[in-house]
Amino acid sequence: MKRVYLDRIAAAPLHPEVLGAMLPHLKGNFGNPQSLHSVGQEALKAIEEAREKVAQLIHAQASEVFFTSSGSESNNFAIKGLALAQRSQGTHIVLSAVEHQSVLHSAKSLEKLGFSVSLVPVDKWGRVSPEEVRKAVTKETVIVSVMLANSEVGTVQPVQEIAEVCGEHKVLFHTDAVAAVGNIPVNVTELGVDALSLAGNQFYGPKGSAVLFVKKGARILPFIDGGIQEGGRRAGTENVAAIVGLGKAAELAMEELEERAEKAKPLRDKLIQELPQRVDHVFLTGHPEKRLPYHASFCIEFIEGEAMLLNLDMQGISVSSGSACTSKALKASHVLLAMGIDHALAQGSLVFSMIEDTTSEDIDYLLEVFPPVIERLRKMSPLYTEYLEEKKQ
Amino acid sequence: MKRVYLDRIAAAPLHPEVLGAMLPHLKGNFGNPQSLHSVGQEALKAIEEAREKVAQLIHAQASEVFFTSSGSESNNFAIKGLALAQRSQGTHIVLSAVEHQSVLHSAKSLEKLGFSVSLVPVDKWGRVSPEEVRKAVTKETVIVSVMLANSEVGTVQPVQEIAEVCGEHKVLFHTDAVAAVGNIPVNVTELGVDALSLAGNQFYGPKGSAVLFVKKGARILPFIDGGIQEGGRRAGTENVAAIVGLGKAAELAMEELEERAEKAKPLRDKLIQELPQRVDHVFLTGHPEKRLPYHASFCIEFIEGEAMLLNLDMQGISVSSGSACTSKALKASHVLLAMGIDHALAQGSLVFSMIEDTTSEDIDYLLEVFPPVIERLRKMSPLYTEYLEEKKQ
Repeated sequence: MKRVYLDRIAAAPLHPEVLGAMLPHLKGNFGNPQSLHSVGQEALKAIEEAREKVAQLIHAQASEVFFTSSGSESNNFAIKGLALAQRSQGTHIVLSAVEHQSVLHSAKSLEKLGFSVSLVPVDKWGRVSPEEVRKAVTKETVIVSVMLANSEVGTVQPVQEIAEVCGEHKVLFHTDAVAAVGNIPVNVTELGVDALSLAGNQFYGPKGSAVLFVKKGARILPFIDGGIQEGGRRAGTENVAAIVGLGKAAELAMEELEERAEKAKPLRDKLIQELPQRVDHVFLTGHPEKRLPYHASFCIEFIEGEAMLLNLDMQGISVSSGSACTSKALKASHVLLAMGIDHALAQGSLVFSMIEDTTSEDIDYLLEVFPPVIERLRKMSPLYTEYLEEKKQ
Repeated sequence: MKRVYLDRIAAAPLHPEVLGAMLPHLKGNFGNPQSLHSVGQEALKAIEEAREKVAQLIHAQASEVFFTSSGSESNNFAIKGLALAQRSQGTHIVLSAVEHQSVLHSAKSLEKLGFSVSLVPVDKWGRVSPEEVRKAVTKETVIVSVMLANSEVGTVQPVQEIAEVCGEHKVLFHTDAVAAVGNIPVNVTELGVDALSLAGNQFYGPKGSAVLFVKKGARILPFIDGGIQEGGRRAGTENVAAIVGLGKAAELAMEELEERAEKAKPLRDKLIQELPQRVDHVFLTGHPEKRLPYHASFCIEFIEGEAMLLNLDMQGISVSSGSACTSKALKASHVLLAMGIDHALAQGSLVFSMIEDTTSEDIDYLLEVFPPVIERLRKMSPLYTEYLEEKKQ
């Protein structure tokens, strides 16, 4: 059976060159970067080189790059660490309604400690308006967090404009760029952000590798307390191999990002154009142009995402019906609901996200397999039967 | 030059079988365990098998095993998560004075949120008395944390007896078993602990792999908020390869733990016996018998640990002068000071910690190299000169 993997928002394969870079640190070079002897110093050198590469990818200083273990950890670190460090100045947090759960739930935890949270609405494409952010900011606001790109609907946010609003109000601004970094150009200086989360597994780096960028001078509390690692901001023995892998993935992204995007875009656009032609009641979610190059997402009426996902899996096609962090929760996505999509339609969400190796034959195979799968599922759908009967009348 | 690695408290090499188990998950099997399709389900199966193996190693239920990214994260998770979850019952925390920085500093962070912390003293061997714990516990106490074994001085604590005291007072009890698990037998049921931290890199598993055991029924807040991973208690894409590696390391430890310990003990005891014979003013730190099998630690008078470490490194010998989490802080170890060792002597700390491959030739080489290194350093030491002059008078 042909296998087509279209779920890179959940996991991208490790690039062979990334694995190659990691292997020496899984074999002979096993030192602890904090050890003063030569075995340790070799490990230290390796992670500092990786820090430099990640810094280059996002146009930051190496000293502004803090390694963590996942995008979710980076987001927790940012929201909790920045908010708690500015606590004496205020206890209000502004987020967009379509943030990742790790941002939303970090803020929820802070509510228990006396913070209050405002959610900024989005338009039908999932875009946050800088003016809405301006309206939400009060004198009590200490941090605003709006993601750079949304992994469920692909929409890219006007982060630079939002950063300007935050700058005017002297409020710290964090962006969750986990779905963006390594896939679209990201420049922290141009964006004007104070903190930014990224994760290696989103651009062919290893799982367990991630970063929080914290702009020089921004006050933040450590998230993992204890050791002197990461400038005292994140205790714990450094995962040297993962960090080195992330560095290599950053290096490759700098070289190949544009080429990868140019290869993915026509495939994405073909899906966006043809899928709704081949099957009726299929609606694109997210912005038609301002979206991730590898990302096409839809709501398919009258069927649940999970059923489609499992049926496509039986045909060898791996896709997702939303964020891997909530996919099993079987709730309608908060992102789609925030975009004004009704609850029933939101249940029929599907995300096709391409990897580097995705070919136009893969997309053709999906376009061929998709209509009969949907037809079969709709035949079993009471909602669809209802719809057909209503239509007859 | 002969190379002798005696710093396994900082880092142990990855076992080749562990790497072998990890590799498929760094190559073809790259799925996200939360994805519902078959690629994801394969990853899920792998991490659940690993969870089962770790559970077996510590005699827990698989559902009580939560994967994290480091021992420090596990300790933060335990202290902060348990304390904040029991906040309505009290805000007092009891720790031993020789805990790892990740335990001590987590408690310090909680002080800012209204908690108070009592430190229980230790005896000259670094042992905590259960009676001292009993004295420290008040009606306000919600959590006690005492480590199972100390990586700086090797001392193993009477954790079972301390757990009994906690049980009598209905206070939750956490033990930091990072230096212990995989090296000495650990049975969470026999110990009677409510939570326990362990880390894979302490027993030939990968960096970035660790666990917090939380006994069924014990209330704990999530540490990384967000996704549904780890039963909603630790968000973030699972580091599948690291988790699988940890599982394999646990399996190997179950098979080989005793044999490894029996091999290490005579080497340890040789060092403990002969080092003070070959060089004067050398004092064993930690308990002479109740200590980790692979661990021999000393204070060497009139010289700083760092100077010895660097000079031994030039002879090909890797050792540490304390915890890798503080080694560069160049402060006298809080562990040694708590044991009543004076400040100047505490500066001369050295830890020799053996790995599986350490041979008796390695120990002989160390015993041969050590005296001239110390002699040379003492010749340059003003403290030693002072001592000699005082002696003459």
